[in-house]
Amino acid sequence: MKLYDFALAPNPRRVRMFLAEKSVEIPVVQVNTREREQFQASFMEKNPLCTVPVLELDDGTCISESVAICRYFEELHPEPPLMGTDAKDKAIVEMWNRRCEFNGYVPAAEAVRNGLPMFADRGIAGMPGGVPQIPALVERGKQSLGRFFEMLDRQLADNAFIAGQALTIADITAFVTIEFAKRIEVALPESGTENLVRWHGEIAARPSAAA
Amino acid sequence: MKLYDFALAPNPRRVRMFLAEKSVEIPVVQVNTREREQFQASFMEKNPLCTVPVLELDDGTCISESVAICRYFEELHPEPPLMGTDAKDKAIVEMWNRRCEFNGYVPAAEAVRNGLPMFADRGIAGMPGGVPQIPALVERGKQSLGRFFEMLDRQLADNAFIAGQALTIADITAFVTIEFAKRIEVALPESGTENLVRWHGEIAARPSAAA
Repeated sequence: MKLYDFALAPNPRRVRMFLAEKSVEIPVVQVNTREREQFQASFMEKNPLCTVPVLELDDGTCISESVAICRYFEELHPEPPLMGTDAKDKAIVEMWNRRCEFNGYVPAAEAVRNGLPMFADRGIAGMPGGVPQIPALVERGKQSLGRFFEMLDRQLADNAFIAGQALTIADITAFVTIEFAKRIEVALPESGTENLVRWHGEIAARPSAAA
Repeated sequence: MKLYDFALAPNPRRVRMFLAEKSVEIPVVQVNTREREQFQASFMEKNPLCTVPVLELDDGTCISESVAICRYFEELHPEPPLMGTDAKDKAIVEMWNRRCEFNGYVPAAEAVRNGLPMFADRGIAGMPGGVPQIPALVERGKQSLGRFFEMLDRQLADNAFIAGQALTIADITAFVTIEFAKRIEVALPESGTENLVRWHGEIAARPSAAA
């Protein structure tokens, strides 16, 4: 088994943090997407969508999509549970992880992709070219992130972690999103989000945050 | 338990199809989003993000996000499995469902939201106003859907269903996306996607497709 990773990319970081919280170590292969290595034929055979991370199993099966990889390890290594415990808890964790993805990670990614010069003509991940950036997505993404921070702050007023009283994949998604957003000069608000700031400091202090 | 639904919206349809495949029936409450009922205070208490579907449990817990609701029912009613069986299979289903979401459903939704006059000033779901449409997302979304159809056709050349040899949530997401895309005048290509057309006909003929 091996993980195709890129140390500077946010989605692989979600998987790395997840594995660190599980205390699972697996071999890692770097795919330098800044050098366009994801478009090499050998990698496209593993993931035709040309994105990292990808988990290659010993039987050759390749799993792309960060959360799909996390779910594989959640099944193999259930402790500590990071995707919920019973039906209701699993649904709550999935809800919050998806809220963090669609209201935080996706807007951040759209702003990065459509704003940074390094992604010129590559406004969608996994495309080698031919996709013009849409600059209006930068401002829209930043506004969405502002609302995302408010949503998290409200939730964290009554909860130690995003999906309740235990760390889950939703915390990982939210934390990676916040770190990722720095690339478009978006930081946590300096006031009015004390709960979020408290939580962010706690997550940043965990060993997994260095993964 | 009750499901807050809207018969004309695509995301609730995913849940309805999932429940139909499980032969599960639950009470349904219509939230007419065309009449902006999702912005009423009573509904915002159930889902501050103002989207349908929402599942309200008997203890008052509210679960939003279609796939989170599906996961709840997958746990309660494991047969037939629609989200995978063992670790590897669950990961493959999650991968394909997410590929269908991020490469099909999301581009379709962006094109609809940013193109149709009924969503003027509401370019993001769940916002009552103040979000100008970005017309460039319509063309980008249509191009993404073209690549999505090609991806599905390649996968369906060797597989009866999208995630392998059994129907899963990935088929539901893909089918609902294809039906949803008709709202922006995007149809399946007339040639070159015979595998996709074969599969689409089979899914459309299932009783759940009428859900």
